[in-house]
Amino acid sequence: MPVLTDIAQLAVCPAEGAQGDLGLIAKAALVWESGAVLWVGSAAALPAAYAEWPRESAGGRLVMPGLIDCHTHLAFGGWRADEFEQKLLGRSYLEIARQGGGIASTVKATRAASEDELHSRARSSLDAMLRLGVTTVECKSGYGLNVEDELKQLRVYRRLAEEGPQRIVPTCLGAHIVPPECKENRKSYLRLLTDELIPQVADESLARFFDVFVEDTAFSREEARTILHVAATHGLRAKLHADQLTDTGGGVLAAELDAASADHLECINANSIRAMAKAGIVAVSLPLATLYLNQEPLPARALIDAGVPVAVATDFNPGSAPSYDLHLALWLACTRQRMTPAEALKGATAYAARALLRDDIGSLEPGNKADFVVVDAPSVNHWLYHFHPETVVRTVISGETAWKRARIP
Amino acid sequence: MPVLTDIAQLAVCPAEGAQGDLGLIAKAALVWESGAVLWVGSAAALPAAYAEWPRESAGGRLVMPGLIDCHTHLAFGGWRADEFEQKLLGRSYLEIARQGGGIASTVKATRAASEDELHSRARSSLDAMLRLGVTTVECKSGYGLNVEDELKQLRVYRRLAEEGPQRIVPTCLGAHIVPPECKENRKSYLRLLTDELIPQVADESLARFFDVFVEDTAFSREEARTILHVAATHGLRAKLHADQLTDTGGGVLAAELDAASADHLECINANSIRAMAKAGIVAVSLPLATLYLNQEPLPARALIDAGVPVAVATDFNPGSAPSYDLHLALWLACTRQRMTPAEALKGATAYAARALLRDDIGSLEPGNKADFVVVDAPSVNHWLYHFHPETVVRTVISGETAWKRARIP
Repeated sequence: MPVLTDIAQLAVCPAEGAQGDLGLIAKAALVWESGAVLWVGSAAALPAAYAEWPRESAGGRLVMPGLIDCHTHLAFGGWRADEFEQKLLGRSYLEIARQGGGIASTVKATRAASEDELHSRARSSLDAMLRLGVTTVECKSGYGLNVEDELKQLRVYRRLAEEGPQRIVPTCLGAHIVPPECKENRKSYLRLLTDELIPQVADESLARFFDVFVEDTAFSREEARTILHVAATHGLRAKLHADQLTDTGGGVLAAELDAASADHLECINANSIRAMAKAGIVAVSLPLATLYLNQEPLPARALIDAGVPVAVATDFNPGSAPSYDLHLALWLACTRQRMTPAEALKGATAYAARALLRDDIGSLEPGNKADFVVVDAPSVNHWLYHFHPETVVRTVISGETAWKRARIP
Repeated sequence: MPVLTDIAQLAVCPAEGAQGDLGLIAKAALVWESGAVLWVGSAAALPAAYAEWPRESAGGRLVMPGLIDCHTHLAFGGWRADEFEQKLLGRSYLEIARQGGGIASTVKATRAASEDELHSRARSSLDAMLRLGVTTVECKSGYGLNVEDELKQLRVYRRLAEEGPQRIVPTCLGAHIVPPECKENRKSYLRLLTDELIPQVADESLARFFDVFVEDTAFSREEARTILHVAATHGLRAKLHADQLTDTGGGVLAAELDAASADHLECINANSIRAMAKAGIVAVSLPLATLYLNQEPLPARALIDAGVPVAVATDFNPGSAPSYDLHLALWLACTRQRMTPAEALKGATAYAARALLRDDIGSLEPGNKADFVVVDAPSVNHWLYHFHPETVVRTVISGETAWKRARIP
């Protein structure tokens, strides 16, 4: 039952309120007990009841909710570093695919990897993410693309969830692409998804969401409807990779299917923006992917102005976003998506929690989990302005210090 | 006299050769003695003479020359975090300046700061840069803008150079802007530069270069000629901030003045590119600044194709580039300037050394200083592809380990 004081600025990040509303408190104090926030406010107003509780100092730093990365493909086999150079030299995706690269190469490497191998790689990424202040991670499958290997990826996530310290939210992305061996017979793959994979994932409670990549090169709107209706009957809520490379009306589809979020949205149209605003669906922006792909980012300001909550995530994967650095993604949300630091932070806390249908994290309102980060900066504005790689000094999950920087700058 | 082995890939970064020529050696060994490189090559070809020398392991990692940040404004007073938010909200530079922001506010804060205060802030940035593998830093004055405060900034750099471990290359940027108090009488400021500041800087050997910001809002080409001719007679070689916001023919001017480098160049024209290629002048690209300023980067590919050596630096300063993260700048040189990882690395090693007229650093050719970095990646391509903040595990300057990561990932 400690009291954290000497907080220069505390960002509550209330679940409700506008994109830029962080509920900032200067010279704040934070009280927690049994892993949950008990009280938060100005240190001068600390209730007498907590006056004698043990105190810890934040050292005059910024405190904010633990960061939530609400879109990653955490566990995969292999890397694709040489493709990065190829793309910079102007080689097209098709050329690269013809040489055996692209997503199919990751599917091959992921199928070839054992559960232990996938786990060990993902474990090391998660540990590094903890040092970046990331306390909750959404993790997608989608590189197995058959029942056995999709379940293998999801079991890696279950193991990571059991180990802790981070909270893991698993999503089945069986509908990432049609795997090479089913190219001539799409229907057989759709049947595999609806008749085998979805029921088994639900049976073993291996995922909270089912995600479909809606795109010419992946799945049609009609196929997404079919798959996600079956997923819904098995208790798996919809997520969509939508409007990434072309406008497929993904925002409207997300509203129709009551998706927890629609992700990417670089090519979203005005109709889809209105539909998402009306339905209150979170838009998950992925600024690392747009930069790696040399693509214009989604119209973040238009979305925010229309009242759509915009989350920010890494999209960590070996092709279009080979970085798990959520701090960097937030900085790019400012510099490339023209979001203010406050708007960006809300996108990796309260709104990211909403994209995961979690109302107990992402905000330091009393009753929520005591997941928080101590950052060596005087304010949120300063944190995302003076970018450097050693800003987080302590990461706390359920009130327990999960990591602390040895040498504080 | 150690031998470093277990090097997965060693990037020699030869001083000569094309932008993408790193002289890569797989399974390499590196031998040094008395602070200088003695031998480098394939481990299998290690000469018998070194066979009994003490060995160290690079752990199957990448080894490359210590990084050189050839354009920074390292020592300054104050920060301008709130301007960052203002700019993201669309406020113009003029509006911000009218509210007391912009460069004038940094001049005010730098003049108000004591030498000790400036030193302590710069010291802490340098320490952090060491953990990013940066072994040489060019440092500009330019926030004093009177004799006393320009010398104060340059004396901070002298102190940092004496302390080590990094090599410091000081540049006087007295011609950054005309200071507010001389707005009505530019000529008095030009006289201050040519008759007082330049002679005193030369007398005390406080700088190697003199830099002029050529732009409508700063100094004209003609003024730059006058200033830099005087600087040359005092042994200070020219550098230029050129073609950043408008095309002022800065590349042609740099060639005419035999500048060591022309920096920024976002608006460079074809004529200037030809002139720089012919004169062999280094173009210093500053990808952090273009992103913070929401500006198109310089035409790196056109420069490289024309044969201009392109360096990459941070431009670290509190306004347009509040980050000293050279690793991030190199990643942006790839993703935003479409340079390959090899081209980017050459820009922060051999070509950055050339921009500082140093032929003893920036490359691991025998005879050069043994400044090198051990990086937790299997190759240069992989290092700038899988971006994360803990890649450097050891920084060595003159053969001595200046920093080592405690927990190796």
